[in-house]
Amino acid sequence: MAPSSEDVAVSGGGSQELSNSSPTSSSSGGAGVLGERDHFSKLLQNNREWCKARLAADPKFFERLCEQQNPEYLWIGCSDSRVPANQILGLQPGEVFVQRNVGNQATHTDLNVMSCLEYSVKELKVKNVIVCGHYGCGAVKAALKLPSKTTNLVNCWISDIRECRNQHRAELMQLDDHQAQVDRLCELNVLRQAFHVATSPVVQAAWDRGQELHLYGVVYSLKDGQIKKLVGPISGNGDFECDQADFESHGATYVAAAEAAAAAAVAEVGAGVGNLNVVSATLDGRVSLNGVTLTSEAKEDGRSSAAQVDALRAYINTAKVNNRIAEHVNGWH
Amino acid sequence: MAPSSEDVAVSGGGSQELSNSSPTSSSSGGAGVLGERDHFSKLLQNNREWCKARLAADPKFFERLCEQQNPEYLWIGCSDSRVPANQILGLQPGEVFVQRNVGNQATHTDLNVMSCLEYSVKELKVKNVIVCGHYGCGAVKAALKLPSKTTNLVNCWISDIRECRNQHRAELMQLDDHQAQVDRLCELNVLRQAFHVATSPVVQAAWDRGQELHLYGVVYSLKDGQIKKLVGPISGNGDFECDQADFESHGATYVAAAEAAAAAAVAEVGAGVGNLNVVSATLDGRVSLNGVTLTSEAKEDGRSSAAQVDALRAYINTAKVNNRIAEHVNGWH
Amino acid sequence: MAPSSEDVAVSGGGSQELSNSSPTSSSSGGAGVLGERDHFSKLLQNNREWCKARLAADPKFFERLCEQQNPEYLWIGCSDSRVPANQILGLQPGEVFVQRNVGNQATHTDLNVMSCLEYSVKELKVKNVIVCGHYGCGAVKAALKLPSKTTNLVNCWISDIRECRNQHRAELMQLDDHQAQVDRLCELNVLRQAFHVATSPVVQAAWDRGQELHLYGVVYSLKDGQIKKLVGPISGNGDFECDQADFESHGATYVAAAEAAAAAAVAEVGAGVGNLNVVSATLDGRVSLNGVTLTSEAKEDGRSSAAQVDALRAYINTAKVNNRIAEHVNGWH
Amino acid sequence: MAPSSEDVAVSGGGSQELSNSSPTSSSSGGAGVLGERDHFSKLLQNNREWCKARLAADPKFFERLCEQQNPEYLWIGCSDSRVPANQILGLQPGEVFVQRNVGNQATHTDLNVMSCLEYSVKELKVKNVIVCGHYGCGAVKAALKLPSKTTNLVNCWISDIRECRNQHRAELMQLDDHQAQVDRLCELNVLRQAFHVATSPVVQAAWDRGQELHLYGVVYSLKDGQIKKLVGPISGNGDFECDQADFESHGATYVAAAEAAAAAAVAEVGAGVGNLNVVSATLDGRVSLNGVTLTSEAKEDGRSSAAQVDALRAYINTAKVNNRIAEHVNGWH
Repeated sequence: MAPSSEDVAVSGGGSQELSNSSPTSSSSGGAGVLGERDHFSKLLQNNREWCKARLAADPKFFERLCEQQNPEYLWIGCSDSRVPANQILGLQPGEVFVQRNVGNQATHTDLNVMSCLEYSVKELKVKNVIVCGHYGCGAVKAALKLPSKTTNLVNCWISDIRECRNQHRAELMQLDDHQAQVDRLCELNVLRQAFHVATSPVVQAAWDRGQELHLYGVVYSLKDGQIKKLVGPISGNGDFECDQADFESHGATYVAAAEAAAAAAVAEVGAGVGNLNVVSATLDGRVSLNGVTLTSEAKEDGRSSAAQVDALRAYINTAKVNNRIAEHVNGWH
Repeated sequence: MAPSSEDVAVSGGGSQELSNSSPTSSSSGGAGVLGERDHFSKLLQNNREWCKARLAADPKFFERLCEQQNPEYLWIGCSDSRVPANQILGLQPGEVFVQRNVGNQATHTDLNVMSCLEYSVKELKVKNVIVCGHYGCGAVKAALKLPSKTTNLVNCWISDIRECRNQHRAELMQLDDHQAQVDRLCELNVLRQAFHVATSPVVQAAWDRGQELHLYGVVYSLKDGQIKKLVGPISGNGDFECDQADFESHGATYVAAAEAAAAAAVAEVGAGVGNLNVVSATLDGRVSLNGVTLTSEAKEDGRSSAAQVDALRAYINTAKVNNRIAEHVNGWH
Repeated sequence: MAPSSEDVAVSGGGSQELSNSSPTSSSSGGAGVLGERDHFSKLLQNNREWCKARLAADPKFFERLCEQQNPEYLWIGCSDSRVPANQILGLQPGEVFVQRNVGNQATHTDLNVMSCLEYSVKELKVKNVIVCGHYGCGAVKAALKLPSKTTNLVNCWISDIRECRNQHRAELMQLDDHQAQVDRLCELNVLRQAFHVATSPVVQAAWDRGQELHLYGVVYSLKDGQIKKLVGPISGNGDFECDQADFESHGATYVAAAEAAAAAAVAEVGAGVGNLNVVSATLDGRVSLNGVTLTSEAKEDGRSSAAQVDALRAYINTAKVNNRIAEHVNGWH
Repeated sequence: MAPSSEDVAVSGGGSQELSNSSPTSSSSGGAGVLGERDHFSKLLQNNREWCKARLAADPKFFERLCEQQNPEYLWIGCSDSRVPANQILGLQPGEVFVQRNVGNQATHTDLNVMSCLEYSVKELKVKNVIVCGHYGCGAVKAALKLPSKTTNLVNCWISDIRECRNQHRAELMQLDDHQAQVDRLCELNVLRQAFHVATSPVVQAAWDRGQELHLYGVVYSLKDGQIKKLVGPISGNGDFECDQADFESHGATYVAAAEAAAAAAVAEVGAGVGNLNVVSATLDGRVSLNGVTLTSEAKEDGRSSAAQVDALRAYINTAKVNNRIAEHVNGWH
């Protein structure tokens, strides 16, 4: 009797002897290897089918994959099972180099992330780094709470997200809803981790030698599966001339310039929505138009466009992050 | 004119003014946000299409995704762009919690990996942990070489793979081909990282409280996209009674028992291939049948079956890794 | 001929043969072990003498040292050779458990420091943790500069000190002198690392179970060898009742109360120096008395006392750090 | 009334009010800053006295300390309070750059240790690195036990010492006494950490550019305070020409040569103890002389000299570690 391609055991006697005497049977269960568990067999089955499908679509697919390692993107995302890097971007194997950890962090002292960054930027020369967070992130929820009193590992691991929370306490406390606080901290965490990437020695070195590298911060919504850009592209340290005595005013001028440009854009776009006199972008990212706060929800009166507002916010975020990068990089001489 | 949903700029004048004066234009390029770069727009476009496709197949898909976080698998894989966790297993968002790093490592001192492990095992209660390596891994190639003399980050990061290389020097040196050495070290590294997962405090604690958790080590081939199981399932510390004075012989007896069982299986299976007198499993995993080494390539004479041999090797690996876990765990009292 | 207790070689012939053929002679030098290098022999010699001196002073010294491991202090200091933990505190072996690293850091994600903290607090039950920085610290100097463009290790390691610099940019930029900026950042870094210790899961857990544990932040001056206390003792999370809606004003009230108390103290102490109407403590720690800034230098007119001012500053720092701890710990419910 | 230099409070009324109302009084105790706790005052007092003593001995001591940072040694030792780096070597501030952590580890993936190593070797150009362990080390004791089932931090931190235990299982299990096992693992851990230092990218780079750098591994005995050298000096990768096909035999020849040389030395030295025909150094470091095992205890018949045996063992250890370094470094080409 020909055995199936997964099994080794053939005749009842032989396999049953092996099953019964299998040393891999521990007290917690775990049938012998020779009679494979269904769930893993299912995965192997899926794998075979996926291979067949790929070859059917393109017979040379795996040949080329072997030789090539030229991804254009590095993705730094959350380990959360519901946010799969490749699928939600519609990318194929070979296109995205991936780091996934709890809370999509990119702190400089984490050798794990920094090695991914170094390898992908320096050796593979990816052109883009995308930091992707997601609303409802468990790590962010945990970071909102008081520090745990147990010395478990996750509690130490999320300390940079707690730092982010502390720095934006004023803004977060003004939000009524706990869920709104979680979602806003998800966004702030993405901006913070993007800032870490931009100011990392790896990226600073890449920009210094003129390497093309663009950075984005995005957030993923589990409600509708959509990616929303929060900041980017950031492609260099910017052209901020910072003098020690003048930086504060210079920085303020820069943000003001960004906001004026945003206002001009809103003015152009919003011509159809009425008279736009005053537009301001406040620290927490809310854009006001004629004293009415634009939200990301579409309004019946057509006054705001979610995508327009998002693009504006991203524009202002980019300006601000660029500002902070310049602050960070241009120290004292 | 209604702007497209991606753009904010409308009339040429406005946008061009913004483009020209855009503070985000740094010397390295980077067009203003308001006129988005093609490659990122392409990704957003892919994302929209993927969302539509999912909703078309299942209107309630994202609703359910929001609430649920019940993955059955934790995947510890390599960051390499050519090995996408979800796609090659045919799994959907929500099914796999993912850690990806350079060289698919799971060392106990890496807070990044250990936090993933802790969160997925303790909070999400995944049922399976899969460590997945891949042939041709760049990290493994680098680990075969003498230590670099530059203090870059990757060089420090891969030190556990160098430890693996050192421990298996004898076996690796007997392979003629550099490529064969790389591939064999890929396999040995997977076995080593699986061992680290099994002996981690997180997993030891889980098994100690009776939690169901199965561990697998697999390797992915870029040549044909196929996943091959190297070891597993390992579901507990095993039932090894280890006494300090007897352990060596006990251990030897155990491996011998495993090999005898394997031989019996081969005998049963191979009845149709001739007279099988001598079967042995050597330290490097090669199974010999009548003095002829079984390889994973199919032979015309039908003497060996690749899948049968792989299953046998996995069986023996599992026995040996279980053995090493017992050694590791059962210290001195 | 009896060989000296250090050497093995005896007759000229034997040792010279060994020296000549010593496999430890590498091209970079390194005389054979058998004829020991002077500098290490010197250290062994110092060691023997130190042992004799200790036994002469107390014959049972080493006996007791063997059994006991009851230090009262954990010292987290800089690796800098010029700041030896034990000597500058006049403590004996057995009294201080020590962690020393570049920049005296205590970030939560560093397993090295956190393990020291956990072991000393949980197992050895030290009563005090002292974070000690020092003026002129090389790590702090490096953190003031723009991020290096080389991916070396120290550059990643000091990123938390750069974070400290960024958060206190306004204050630092007002200091004219680069040296003054370095010294002030040394102090701010000590306050920051002390805050990390206080909010670490290890210490939070200890205070939660009622363990006696006091925290101090100090700075060491290479100019005169003196330790100056910056903050402490901090012995718990404080008794801040923080309500989400009220925290801002509550916090402000608390600091005001601290300052008023400080003012009363100054008034009491300074009765002999004239009429004291206005005292204020500004964000950067400068205490003003009648509009005249008190410095730490002794003034001929006796108006200020360096120790009094330091104690006041420490008092105010303690109040502020306690405040920040409360902010950090009392999150949202 | 002139206040003491430590206190700020003066008149009973004022200070008592402050004490009573001090916000730093938390429920766990902690008297107000203004009336300082005895134990910390004691430390400040010790510090003042130490400063006076140093100035009395050398008025320019601190002046010179300020400018100079030229230590000759990097010390990697255990945090254990009973092993103070400076005091037991009789060194002064300015002479030793120090890293202290639980278990005196130097793994490549620990950014904390590696930053110390990089800074001291590359910037300060220390000439010697000393790895110092100590008998009775708590971290080593813990590593001998089965892995804990609690995910605390120390348990993850000591995993490299568990790796050391696993690799030397055979030798350790032959020791009857648990205490002997702990002590032998302390020694093996020192050898292992020294090996890590030698093969670290930092040290490999230093040797590659011809920098003078010598490495030692030592162990400290709490019983008598004495430092014993286990291995060193190691000053380079050695001059081992390793060819892939020949390494095994070459390695064996090298060790044999070392042992023969050691035997010749023993023969020379031991001329007065009788006829020496057979001397061998076994894998576990025991030296036999005429079939009688030499121990480190002095024997009445004068047959063995503890110092001679220690020097021989160090010689053989050095040869073996050099051998392993060569193995590690000279990979495949």
